[in-house]
Amino acid sequence: MSGTVSLDVSGAVAFVTLSHPGKFNAMSRAMWHALRAVFESVQQDCALRAVLVRGEGGHFCAGGDISEYAAFRFDEASLRDFHEREVWGGLQAMLACDLPIIAQIEGNCMGAGVEIASCCDLRLASDTARFGAPIARLGFPMAPREAALVIRAVGELTAREMLLSAAVLGAAELKQRGFLNQVVPAADLQGAADACLDRIRPLAPQATRLNKQTFRALSPVLAHEMAADLVANAYDYAPSAEHREGVTAFIDKRSPQFSD
Amino acid sequence: MSGTVSLDVSGAVAFVTLSHPGKFNAMSRAMWHALRAVFESVQQDCALRAVLVRGEGGHFCAGGDISEYAAFRFDEASLRDFHEREVWGGLQAMLACDLPIIAQIEGNCMGAGVEIASCCDLRLASDTARFGAPIARLGFPMAPREAALVIRAVGELTAREMLLSAAVLGAAELKQRGFLNQVVPAADLQGAADACLDRIRPLAPQATRLNKQTFRALSPVLAHEMAADLVANAYDYAPSAEHREGVTAFIDKRSPQFSD
Amino acid sequence: MSGTVSLDVSGAVAFVTLSHPGKFNAMSRAMWHALRAVFESVQQDCALRAVLVRGEGGHFCAGGDISEYAAFRFDEASLRDFHEREVWGGLQAMLACDLPIIAQIEGNCMGAGVEIASCCDLRLASDTARFGAPIARLGFPMAPREAALVIRAVGELTAREMLLSAAVLGAAELKQRGFLNQVVPAADLQGAADACLDRIRPLAPQATRLNKQTFRALSPVLAHEMAADLVANAYDYAPSAEHREGVTAFIDKRSPQFSD
Repeated sequence: MSGTVSLDVSGAVAFVTLSHPGKFNAMSRAMWHALRAVFESVQQDCALRAVLVRGEGGHFCAGGDISEYAAFRFDEASLRDFHEREVWGGLQAMLACDLPIIAQIEGNCMGAGVEIASCCDLRLASDTARFGAPIARLGFPMAPREAALVIRAVGELTAREMLLSAAVLGAAELKQRGFLNQVVPAADLQGAADACLDRIRPLAPQATRLNKQTFRALSPVLAHEMAADLVANAYDYAPSAEHREGVTAFIDKRSPQFSD
Repeated sequence: MSGTVSLDVSGAVAFVTLSHPGKFNAMSRAMWHALRAVFESVQQDCALRAVLVRGEGGHFCAGGDISEYAAFRFDEASLRDFHEREVWGGLQAMLACDLPIIAQIEGNCMGAGVEIASCCDLRLASDTARFGAPIARLGFPMAPREAALVIRAVGELTAREMLLSAAVLGAAELKQRGFLNQVVPAADLQGAADACLDRIRPLAPQATRLNKQTFRALSPVLAHEMAADLVANAYDYAPSAEHREGVTAFIDKRSPQFSD
Repeated sequence: MSGTVSLDVSGAVAFVTLSHPGKFNAMSRAMWHALRAVFESVQQDCALRAVLVRGEGGHFCAGGDISEYAAFRFDEASLRDFHEREVWGGLQAMLACDLPIIAQIEGNCMGAGVEIASCCDLRLASDTARFGAPIARLGFPMAPREAALVIRAVGELTAREMLLSAAVLGAAELKQRGFLNQVVPAADLQGAADACLDRIRPLAPQATRLNKQTFRALSPVLAHEMAADLVANAYDYAPSAEHREGVTAFIDKRSPQFSD
């Protein structure tokens, strides 16, 4: 068992649930594949009017499943394949979706969680949700496509604070910084999401599809073709001592010791 | 009588007033033409130092004049002509203006109102003003150039919330999201606009003109040439059943029934 | 004595201090050269983990040193050299730096001060700090590269308000508008900066360097090659009467009289 991404259709709404018990829904490789399959399936279903993405058990998604990292991160080719095909495959399927996607966020929303939320059109959060991407503690940078996606959604100021100072920020702060549409007490989150779905359901589906295509066309940085030279050397750090130290220290539950 | 856009010059300030009584100043085709003519005239007047745009009777602008839509929206060529020549002609004349433009916003600021406000350099609003672009209820998307303009001004988060969930947001929220420079009680709005004009009047006019040219040059997405392929198929939806249903239902004062 | 930019290294942190006593640390030409030299030196030092930029004596930086302007601003070639080589040389060295840069801001942060702060990754400010770029009072526009930098950091709305209406805004407002990461009482500013440095010090240096390169690659508007046609005629205003009047009036301590 390495986590699931499940799809439940109720009326015109697709509910996508990230689930990885005991790991705050951290994304395993299997979950990235499942995320892609779920959104490719959602995109084919003409009866749908909206998608809601949420996490199981009080958290959205705590990042990647680090227990898998030692097996593939230290080789350039397999690290590239992970980010460019597996992770980006899942995120790209979300970005390609012509339906409105709502993120319903509570608890931890870190790293991969921020990336998944950044692919959503609307973001609702509980006032206790926490956001960050403290991967510099793990010894590696954010992959370029994922960084472009996150910068666009959280803004340069917040992306730099998250990536360069490992800051973790609360929901009220992320609302103020323009990442969240609405922040409510945890008890009201489901109601806020339902109200949002009720507003979306009766809207014209073709108009929505065309609007989503326009949003996509106006964000070329996210296009699959765009970042070719940006990613040429992006994974050269795979076999470095620093990368290995960060990931290994985390798995060994000790503080990493970085030197340059 | 289908509404007017009037120009009154007082000292070094051009006051542009949107007026369409009984329709919250909704923009008719005649008004788009007038908006263009007014701003082309303003641009020629070397004695001016600022432009203030406002609406008549307690509202800024409630959108387009839907009563005109059945006559031209369901044909691709005339729909294209409306958006690319008439609407964009008015907005483009505003964007080409080398003077500082202040929007003084109260009441409804919807659809075309948000677009006109997005062409202004500074935006002051009454705390009772309301903002949105709920056109997905009318069965059509925002035209690509207009969407690029609005996204740049309100931000992606808010543009998606307005277009994909038909959200209507208050002035305090739009201030927090970075669309408004200042929000004041309705009784103080005129004073805030006057203070802003007083600050602008003594500034160096050539410096202002050069600054506005720099802002324009740094926003290529708004250039007339830019979006050629974006608009190639943008109006194919003109004769669709959904489009017709949305507009017709509004005119008939009933809820639209959309299916895909 | 025309001001200094000093570098003090303490452990893994480089402290860069702007100092121009009696002028709120306004940037002289010598200081722009020193800023470049300091950041080129910092970039070579592999033992560093962060840079902190601050001003001497309760202010960050009040802008450019206007007392020097009459000597070079009214000639196109020397004005171009000033902005494109001297000013941009300093800012470019900051943008090229692969270390996290923190701005610690109190008091006046105007014009060149906003530009320097815009090259930093994180910005912490005292709640009494004040921000603006009221150069239209001096009869000249912001140079295109500097405008691109500032617009990206403060946002279009605020850049237009600062440049087109000579607005001066407080720290709380700039926090709300997304320019500042944190605003604290003056007495707590040093503590906030120290806490930020403590968070950054143990992070992986290679990951940070790669993240900074990604941020840079995703902001092409700031690339040195980018703005070639933007700057072709950018300094034609050098010998104009308006420019001369603005600068001369300031030096003469009288109000400028601009006409077009």
